[in-house]
Amino acid sequence: MMNVLSAEAKRELLTRGFTRRTFGRVATLISAGATLPFYNEAALAQLSMVQSKMPEDAVIINANENPLGPCNEAAEAMYSIVKKGGRYLYQLTFELQKTIAEQEGLKPNYVSVYAGSSAPLHQAVLAFCSPSKSFVVADPGYEAGGRAAKFIGAKVINVPLTKDYAHDVRAMVKADPNAGLIYLCNPNNPTGTLTPRADIDWALANKPKGSILMVDEAYIHISPHAVSAMDLAAADKDVVVLRTFSKLYGMAGLRAGFAAARPDLLEKIQPYSAGAMPVTAMVGASTSLKVKTLVPERRKIIGDVREDVFSFLDKHNYSYVRSESNKFMLDTKRPAREFVQAMAAHKIYVGRVWPAWPTYSRITIGTRDEMEKFKAALLKVMA
Amino acid sequence: MMNVLSAEAKRELLTRGFTRRTFGRVATLISAGATLPFYNEAALAQLSMVQSKMPEDAVIINANENPLGPCNEAAEAMYSIVKKGGRYLYQLTFELQKTIAEQEGLKPNYVSVYAGSSAPLHQAVLAFCSPSKSFVVADPGYEAGGRAAKFIGAKVINVPLTKDYAHDVRAMVKADPNAGLIYLCNPNNPTGTLTPRADIDWALANKPKGSILMVDEAYIHISPHAVSAMDLAAADKDVVVLRTFSKLYGMAGLRAGFAAARPDLLEKIQPYSAGAMPVTAMVGASTSLKVKTLVPERRKIIGDVREDVFSFLDKHNYSYVRSESNKFMLDTKRPAREFVQAMAAHKIYVGRVWPAWPTYSRITIGTRDEMEKFKAALLKVMA
Repeated sequence: MMNVLSAEAKRELLTRGFTRRTFGRVATLISAGATLPFYNEAALAQLSMVQSKMPEDAVIINANENPLGPCNEAAEAMYSIVKKGGRYLYQLTFELQKTIAEQEGLKPNYVSVYAGSSAPLHQAVLAFCSPSKSFVVADPGYEAGGRAAKFIGAKVINVPLTKDYAHDVRAMVKADPNAGLIYLCNPNNPTGTLTPRADIDWALANKPKGSILMVDEAYIHISPHAVSAMDLAAADKDVVVLRTFSKLYGMAGLRAGFAAARPDLLEKIQPYSAGAMPVTAMVGASTSLKVKTLVPERRKIIGDVREDVFSFLDKHNYSYVRSESNKFMLDTKRPAREFVQAMAAHKIYVGRVWPAWPTYSRITIGTRDEMEKFKAALLKVMA
Repeated sequence: MMNVLSAEAKRELLTRGFTRRTFGRVATLISAGATLPFYNEAALAQLSMVQSKMPEDAVIINANENPLGPCNEAAEAMYSIVKKGGRYLYQLTFELQKTIAEQEGLKPNYVSVYAGSSAPLHQAVLAFCSPSKSFVVADPGYEAGGRAAKFIGAKVINVPLTKDYAHDVRAMVKADPNAGLIYLCNPNNPTGTLTPRADIDWALANKPKGSILMVDEAYIHISPHAVSAMDLAAADKDVVVLRTFSKLYGMAGLRAGFAAARPDLLEKIQPYSAGAMPVTAMVGASTSLKVKTLVPERRKIIGDVREDVFSFLDKHNYSYVRSESNKFMLDTKRPAREFVQAMAAHKIYVGRVWPAWPTYSRITIGTRDEMEKFKAALLKVMA
């Protein structure tokens, strides 16, 4: 977790070693004393950082964070629990589990609460992939699962998005008869584009036997049109749905998320070092779920800023991929790493580059003020 | 993590299955789809609960929690970070790591920050123990490590405390030439008794080659006389020191702790699903460390209540083991499980029973008011 950059180098070395092995997965790593440096959005953003120290007035739009933070009601709930934090208060985790279950039409034991959704994503890769069971993911797609898969010697199959920037479920399903985990992020990260529910249903009906479909819905609340796959988890399908409170709910640093699936799948992705959950996050998440106006209000706030940025880009004839999320891919018409550095010189820290789309940089939607600064710098850098 | 009680039953079943196996450890479990339900203090307390629902006015002295909660300065720091929690704020974890390192005379890379100390304890067992490398622990001792060890098929060797209730380091070191991890909790849990530093040094000098000494100092701040082993970690010895903010610092539900050791040992116990840490806990812990009066003040508060309880017990000729911690072992002079139930009937929830000491119950030191209620119930139950 610490020293991300040196761990990165280590990971590369170790990956080469471990892909030659076929015996065991985690045990091999542990007995060899290897670190397991998997990454979440913030750590991946760090890897892409030009400088390690950012100035005080930096505009940070590189990690799909929500500058709004938690809503007032959630903040109040967190304030009020802090002084009681001398106790473990497990019941607050159970209450969150129950609230989620009620709202999503699930039985409580179909919900596992975590401190974010990175843990269940990584652990699902460890549970369902292996050197003989691959990880299938969109390209460009969220890299965390693929890094975990590579680390344990599982093949990562990157399947290009369709021309409409949806997951190419037909190609993904055909990619490997021994697929372990087929990972769909909807809306996709980094593109913020949607995959139709009919395609998700088709993937489920046609996926290789024994494989699991994971639908990562980290950004779903921000999109006006995305359709959740939660009902498939409720219906005992081979589906694991991930959700997080890190994005629309503005709780990335506070740590709450969950996995939803039938209990036998949830059991397989349980962590081996379960501990108590942070009570601040538990009450913040429970409270957020009860604020009925929160999702539509924030969807509108983020959407309005996003559409304003898109109007600006259209006006200046810049190329980008239309998104329904809090980030989008901008075609910088040059090696995008150069663009990232040029923007950083203006104290605008934009997101990283995917090898499949080397001229694109991922831009997170910040506040209106932040995006005005982004626009001003963009005009200079693109000139 | 969820459904602890049913997981308990499952664990028992699985343990029997897995101890017969010698191939692999975690991988075996994951490929078999097993849950890995390890336990922390709160979960263990839950297991010992007589009822699943406690009344509103229950006195909860069963999980070594600190009813004082975080100090005011830490609470203020947590309040002030909540609204910024829309970002991952990794730098707050690095700042905590740096503060710990400065205060403990360690290089920063000798410190790994976690959301509590359960994770590094469990992960150290996975890293250093195996079916051929045992886990050596005091009896009675904190059970979490032993549960993790049993679960992966590692032998657990319980070594009775000395007549002075110290760890019997000579017997522990001799217990198994293939020991993987020798675990000392100082002050010990559940007894709150000390192990002299000279004995820890002796254990280090004489332990089997290849074994690691873990010194769990979860309760060390509460004791006026315990001597830390932190300098041994700084000196590159085969020692891992655990600390938590859950006890004296009153942050059990807020989740912060750390492991200290030379970097190659820390790497071996890194989690496979590292994610961001809860920012509330990070600033709460950093701030707590900077409140210079906190440790002596709280040590005195807890110590005064404890000594008052001991005076009461002496006056009534009740038997107990003198402790320097926020808990002690009371000899109930009957099967202690009966005592636990009898106290629960008075809404006093006392701690669990260790098989080696079947007539003892572990009592956590609560507030003065809570302990008055404890005393009143005790007189009735012991009558």
